[in-house]
Order: sequence, then C-alpha cells, then structure tokens
Amino acid sequence: MSSADALETVLSAGGGDLARGLQSTEARLAEVAEGHGAELGRHATGTLAAGGKRLRPVLVFLCGGTGEGLLRAAVAVELLHMASLVHDDVLDGASLRRGVPTVFASGGRGAAVATGDLLFSRAFAELRRTSSEPAVAALSEASSALARGELVQRADAWSDSVSAERYLQRCELKTASLFAASARLGALLGDDSTPRDADALASFGRRMGLAFQILDDVLDVSGPPERTGKHRGTDLLDGTVTLPLILARGRDPELAGMDLRALVSSPEQAGAVCDRIARTGALEAAREEAHDHVAEAKASLSGLDLPESRRQALELVADGVVERYA
Amino acid sequence: MSSADALETVLSAGGGDLARGLQSTEARLAEVAEGHGAELGRHATGTLAAGGKRLRPVLVFLCGGTGEGLLRAAVAVELLHMASLVHDDVLDGASLRRGVPTVFASGGRGAAVATGDLLFSRAFAELRRTSSEPAVAALSEASSALARGELVQRADAWSDSVSAERYLQRCELKTASLFAASARLGALLGDDSTPRDADALASFGRRMGLAFQILDDVLDVSGPPERTGKHRGTDLLDGTVTLPLILARGRDPELAGMDLRALVSSPEQAGAVCDRIARTGALEAAREEAHDHVAEAKASLSGLDLPESRRQALELVADGVVERYA
Repeated sequence: MSSADALETVLSAGGGDLARGLQSTEARLAEVAEGHGAELGRHATGTLAAGGKRLRPVLVFLCGGTGEGLLRAAVAVELLHMASLVHDDVLDGASLRRGVPTVFASGGRGAAVATGDLLFSRAFAELRRTSSEPAVAALSEASSALARGELVQRADAWSDSVSAERYLQRCELKTASLFAASARLGALLGDDSTPRDADALASFGRRMGLAFQILDDVLDVSGPPERTGKHRGTDLLDGTVTLPLILARGRDPELAGMDLRALVSSPEQAGAVCDRIARTGALEAAREEAHDHVAEAKASLSGLDLPESRRQALELVADGVVERYA
Repeated sequence: MSSADALETVLSAGGGDLARGLQSTEARLAEVAEGHGAELGRHATGTLAAGGKRLRPVLVFLCGGTGEGLLRAAVAVELLHMASLVHDDVLDGASLRRGVPTVFASGGRGAAVATGDLLFSRAFAELRRTSSEPAVAALSEASSALARGELVQRADAWSDSVSAERYLQRCELKTASLFAASARLGALLGDDSTPRDADALASFGRRMGLAFQILDDVLDVSGPPERTGKHRGTDLLDGTVTLPLILARGRDPELAGMDLRALVSSPEQAGAVCDRIARTGALEAAREEAHDHVAEAKASLSGLDLPESRRQALELVADGVVERYA
C-alpha cells in the first residue's frame, strides 16, 4: 500500500471529522503564517506550504474525535513541530527540506532562529485559547522535551559510548514526546474522553513516535538515496550516534574500536560505514525493535472505549509508520 | 545615586514583599536551570548566575503586590528574557555577556539555539501553573512580539529609509512588549488588582520599555567604552538603524546620503560615525524622547488605587531607567 493510499484509508476509517479537521488545520496554519507581519509571512509561508504528513494533527483528531479545542491543539502541535524543524535546519545548516529552500537558506541564520521562535510562540498562543491548563502543560512539557533532546544529541555527538538506552531516551525527548502530547491533547480536549483514555492514548503516541524515529534512523543507513533524497549516512557525518551504529558496534568489535570522526569525513566514507553496519544485521535488529513498539502502541488501545472506526484508523496510522519504511 | 543605591531605595519603598519575591525568584531560576538535565544545567547555570537587574520580575512584584501566582510570573518573564538573550547571542555571534561567556561561546550554535528553546518552554511551563488563561495569553503575545521584533530588525538592517515610527514599532516589539506583559501579569495575578489596573500598568511597563530601549541605543553611540564594556557603534557595525542615526540623518544631509555598509567596516570607522551623529545633537533629542516616555509612564499611574509605597517604588524604577544612562 502506498502512503497516499494509506492516508486515504485512514481518512475514510477516521470518518468525515478527520478530513474536515485536517482541512481546517491547513487553513488555520496559513492564517497564522500570514497574520503576524510581512516578515513572518515571507519566511513561514514556504515552510507551511511545504506540507508534510501532518501526522501529529492526525493523532489529535483521531484521539479526540470531536471537540471544540481539537483544531487549536492540532494547529499548536504542528506549529511546534515546524518551529523545531526550522531550528534544526539552522543547526544542520540545511538548505532544502521537502524540496523547498529552508528559512535558513532563504533568510539566513537570524531570520531562521527568529522565525522558529515566532512559530513556537504562536503554538502557545493557539492552545491557550482552549483555556485548558492540562493542555498547556502537555504542550510545554513536549516543547521542553524537544529542546532537551536536541541538547542531549549535541552532547552525545561523536561519542563511542552511547548506549541503546541513552539513544532511546533521546528518541523519547526528540520525537516520542510530541507524538504522545498530540494524542494526550486529543484525549484531553475530545468530547468523549476520560482521564484514563489520556494516559493510554499518550502511551500509543509515545510508542508510535519511538518506532518512527528508529525507522527514520534505519533509513539513513539503508537508503537508497533515490528514495530518501539524500546520501546515506548523513547522521554519521554529523556525529549523531543512532541505534543501527550502536547495535553494529556490539556485533563488530573492530567497528566498536574505531573513532567515528576519523572514520567518516566524506559521503563516500559514510556510505562504506553504512555498508559495514548493514553487514552486521543491525538494520534488521533495529527494524524489529521498531515493530515491537508499533505492536505495543496498538496494544495500548485495547480496553479503551473507542468507536471502532477511530480504533481502526489509529491502528492504520501506527502501521503506516512501518509501511513508510517498508 | 548609583544603581545599587537606587535598587536599595526601590526595595525599601517596595517593602519586604518585593525583596522576598526577588529572593524566591533567584532560588526558583536556579532550580529550573538545574532541574532539566545535565545538558541544560551546564549551559543555563552560567547565564542565570550572570544575573542582571531582574527589572521584569521587579515590575511583576510591584504591579501585583501580593498573590500566589506572582512568583510564577516573575520567573516566567525572566526565563523568556533570558531565552531571547541566548538566541540574540547566536545571531550576533557574541562571546561575552555581563562578563560571562555566552552559551554560544561555550557550547556552540546548536547548544545555544536549543538552550534558548528550553528556557522558552520552561517559561510557559512555569506560568501555566497559575491556571490563568489571560496570563498565558499575555506571555505568548509578548514572546511572539520578541520574535517579530527580531525579524523586523533583520529586515531593516542596513536600510537608509528606516523612519522613527518604524524604529519605535521595533522597540515596541523587541523590548516594550515584555515590560508591558510583566506589568500586566502582576496586575492579573495580584490579589488587589482590577481589570482597569491591568491596562494602566501595562501602559506604564510599555512606556518604561520604550525609554529603556531608546537610552540603550543612545549609549551605544555615546559610550564611553570604559562604562559600557564595548566599543562605540556596535549597532552601526551590524547594520542596526537606531533613533540616534535616524535623527542625525534628518539633521545632516550628507550623512543621510551615505551608505551605512560602505561607511562602517571597522570599530574605528564606527567611532567616527558616532562622533558625527553626536555633533548633530541627535543624542540629546533621543534622550529627550526617552524622558518623555518615562514621564508618560509615571502619568499612567495617576488615578490607580495603588498603595503609596508601591507607587513610589514604580516611579523610582522608571526614574532608574534614566539614572542608569545619566
């Protein structure tokens, strides 16, 4: 199943509420980009229009069903996600994202830091209108986690002693926290949720986020470049130690003893290290771990009193994380 | 009166509540810096310990009097202020602030962007505990304004056509908005305030912020370096067009016709342009405008039912903005 087909299936399983919710989300995101001065408009419109899968808003709507605050929450989590992407592009000096010039490339470092800050602020401005203190709490915890994840990643760069546990902790912070918050916001602001739902749905989002990040890291090693749009081993080149390398180091003692900085200084060398990682079987092992998280995600839905169409749609979204990388 | 003496006077006019509030603010800021992972602690502790005047928390406490949420608000506005400083240092490539190495200098660009993001997030995490939706609204509007101000400043860099109105709009965004929000938060969360107080006190904060920024910009031109700790004309060197230059351009046609980029490429040249600006009388005119804002700030207190000690303390704080630059 292609990912476009998968989205169609989710939309139909999620019912008209999801499709309408996502349309309103797009419209509101465009309003935010245009409503805060010409300077933001110039930089943010491109970033917003470049789209993306809107996975986090999908989680909000599917976990919430119907409810007045859901649109605010969907817009807020996407704004926060975009703010973090804009800042990541500053750190990585990235010039393209989703085929569109980054704010960093078109406006420079200053404009990109400020644009990220503004998108960030607008996320809170959007969500506070729900007047839900637990909702603002969930967003501020997630946004703290994103920033902490970035700090941990910087601190661990080029390290030869990052454990799988430490790696997973970083995935929790950088990725799973916002997926979990999206699901929790849906539960908090949906008309038909109970407090118990919020924890179970957050757990669903968290597991899905972990799988998402692990598979993204596998793809960086496996390629192929024609599919990913970038050469293999970009993580190796900037010193980011991910699960495939950690597992491969445990299986290939010679690889474990090598200094990453000395080993990888060109895309060609990075490709060679990727091949070496792949030969250890580490990619299969990492994929298996991701699949376990997807299974756990789906298991956390059991016992919830969700309408069958929304449960199915959530399961499809979780499976979609795997499909995307299949 | 030295600024240390002035603070003493304010503290005694503000009563024990202010002194206790500021002590608790320091303690809580230290907790925040230490409570979010070793990575934040390493970078933020220095920034926090470097101190500063804590003018924004002072506004919160003096405008609020007593109230459970005031400490949260004081910590939140200072965290937001620090987040913006950490990001500003990335944009300016600054290596020292208040005599202490910046996060940018000690940790690099990545650590500084992420540290700013984290301080930013903690500001919202702190304030949402007040469960006051208008309070979160005030903070998110101020934080949006800070980022917009930065974008406007970037957009206007090196321009030969920045008007005084445009300059003041930028000061509103970059500086006055957070002073206004600090005063408003005090009013919103103080035990004895009314909605009318909130607008008048926000207006006080706004005017004080405008004066603060204008005088800061005058000082960049006037020096002397022994007092400011930096050479004159740093704004000129990075293309930031401020009120002294705008006014001088109106008084010295030759200066108006000159391209700033061609004119200023070394600290020595910047010093010469500063002298030329000073000869037009623009510094006195800009100072006068700042003094007018201080007078307006104090006028907005009239008619408020404030305890006399707090009114006096607020007037002292406003005068302190001028004293600082006298």
